[in-house]
Amino acid sequence: MTEIASLGKFGLTDRLTSHIKTSNPSTIRGIGDDAAVLEYKGKEVLVASRLLLEGIHFDLTYVTLKLLGYKAATVAFSNIYAMNGRPKQLLVSTGVSKRFSVEDMEALHAGVEYACEKYGVDIAGVNITSSLTGLTVGVTCTGEADKDKVVYRSQAKPSDLICVSGDLGAAYMGLQLLEREKAVGRGDAGFTPDFAGKEYLLERQLRPEARKDIIEMLAGRRIVPTSMIAVADGLASELLHLCRQSGVGCIVYEERIPIDYQTATMAGQFNMNLTTAAMNGGEDYELLFTVPLSLHETIREIDGIRLIGHICEAESGAHLVARDGTYIPLAAQGWTATEDPA
Amino acid sequence: MTEIASLGKFGLTDRLTSHIKTSNPSTIRGIGDDAAVLEYKGKEVLVASRLLLEGIHFDLTYVTLKLLGYKAATVAFSNIYAMNGRPKQLLVSTGVSKRFSVEDMEALHAGVEYACEKYGVDIAGVNITSSLTGLTVGVTCTGEADKDKVVYRSQAKPSDLICVSGDLGAAYMGLQLLEREKAVGRGDAGFTPDFAGKEYLLERQLRPEARKDIIEMLAGRRIVPTSMIAVADGLASELLHLCRQSGVGCIVYEERIPIDYQTATMAGQFNMNLTTAAMNGGEDYELLFTVPLSLHETIREIDGIRLIGHICEAESGAHLVARDGTYIPLAAQGWTATEDPA
Repeated sequence: MTEIASLGKFGLTDRLTSHIKTSNPSTIRGIGDDAAVLEYKGKEVLVASRLLLEGIHFDLTYVTLKLLGYKAATVAFSNIYAMNGRPKQLLVSTGVSKRFSVEDMEALHAGVEYACEKYGVDIAGVNITSSLTGLTVGVTCTGEADKDKVVYRSQAKPSDLICVSGDLGAAYMGLQLLEREKAVGRGDAGFTPDFAGKEYLLERQLRPEARKDIIEMLAGRRIVPTSMIAVADGLASELLHLCRQSGVGCIVYEERIPIDYQTATMAGQFNMNLTTAAMNGGEDYELLFTVPLSLHETIREIDGIRLIGHICEAESGAHLVARDGTYIPLAAQGWTATEDPA
Repeated sequence: MTEIASLGKFGLTDRLTSHIKTSNPSTIRGIGDDAAVLEYKGKEVLVASRLLLEGIHFDLTYVTLKLLGYKAATVAFSNIYAMNGRPKQLLVSTGVSKRFSVEDMEALHAGVEYACEKYGVDIAGVNITSSLTGLTVGVTCTGEADKDKVVYRSQAKPSDLICVSGDLGAAYMGLQLLEREKAVGRGDAGFTPDFAGKEYLLERQLRPEARKDIIEMLAGRRIVPTSMIAVADGLASELLHLCRQSGVGCIVYEERIPIDYQTATMAGQFNMNLTTAAMNGGEDYELLFTVPLSLHETIREIDGIRLIGHICEAESGAHLVARDGTYIPLAAQGWTATEDPA
């Protein structure tokens, strides 16, 4: 293990960045100056920035630094896809305490680089600073979209169909599983967690993907959603965002919420309400979007997209229709200053 | 004092952002979506991102949250000016522990807003998350520059003149002063620190400005520097960056380094080497830049810019010429994982 102090800030920055090349034409200048220089000809520029904090967004007792780097990058990408854009550059800022070595930082950056390579994104900025208390990762993603194809949260219309990609709640159940195994294994050096048959839950929690494939599929079919948002804080929260910003209401059907069987099995084992996990779990990074009613047949035929309800007038409110037909008002999950799920 | 948990994440975000308007034509969509949407017609897009961490970059025992917000914003702007660009949008991400109230966050954002208003920058993103350990502020600034006027760190040429704006070392001496008064006053509730005659040092540390005026003045005189960098980590470090990235050497003269008399007085009182403070102090956020030798007379006549030396061939190395004529090789100040000055 190499102490960061032995290289110094500039030595470490070099070590982490000297091999990085850029390949997107929009990246005029990446790492190594006061700011990155980009050139987006005739396109809208998208910019999103997020923080990932140790103890809140990740726990290094069960996340490797490489996985953390991968997740930080894909979380940032998902914000750009949620605008119907394409991520092109990523800027990474880390605050790192003495606990971490040069090799730790290399592992974190290896994860970032792997994600960037996979998604065709250039690393255009690397900033390292010291921290007194653990690890902080700041990610800023820039991307592009055609001017008439940017999708906001605010353009959903009554009668629009509500669609969601993939399935929900698995990342949350993965977190519950990791937390349980951590609690069970505490103090037992020989303890080996039992994750057999639950790999999907772990993958969804530890190595989420951004839904590039969905954006490309929609573009291929010339579908431009009327509104879209990334599912970061849970389906209920995101539905409320769409409704509020579009000035509409919504109805979604419990029986239509896409849930993987591993999520269901795990919820059973934990004696947790499955719908609550899917509605409020968070960190799914799926895309929630609306399309005009006329696209009903088209959307229905697409694998990996589920119609879960429809937009209605604002006065009708935002409701989940339970399996027994009861209307349950949607509520954003509570948030306190130390209990933020995402 | 209002607990953040009583408003929740979305309530707090609303409280901090609902009054925010944007005014730059390049800001198509600011706060409230997955990403900001910008439109920079025929311009280069500049993006810079930085983290400010409690205990490393700021100490809330002597910085108010409003001042911190102001500083976070101007630090971000300074990176855009250092590319010869104009900052246009700012995205702010904060990680906040239970220790902080709604009013605290309002104070922080008031400082950010004040800086943005002063510099003509739109707030285009606000993200709040919880933190286990104090306050984390992430700032991302986007801006624009004409394509042929972006100034990199890498184009300094032998015989170019080295210029610096303002004066150096005052922010560092301000920090020393604050640290001393904190140590002296510890445990004494009735203690009133004595800052009379040292206001400039405090202002430089607590409320740094980005040098918009210098960039405008250079543009007004049609001067495009050959290279430029913001002085964040200290003059010596930044000179080494310019030299390395331009593949050149440099000579700067100790007697030419601009130093305010308050900085000099304070260094005397602290028995510190004044040149070391000015060369390595950091956080000055002045602009260090190079211009062709032919601009010698023009630059000499500009108030607030000092010629401190010249660029030479790489083989000659990077040196400070002391008052007694000795050549002292420049060295970047040491950096360890818990001793980062900026």
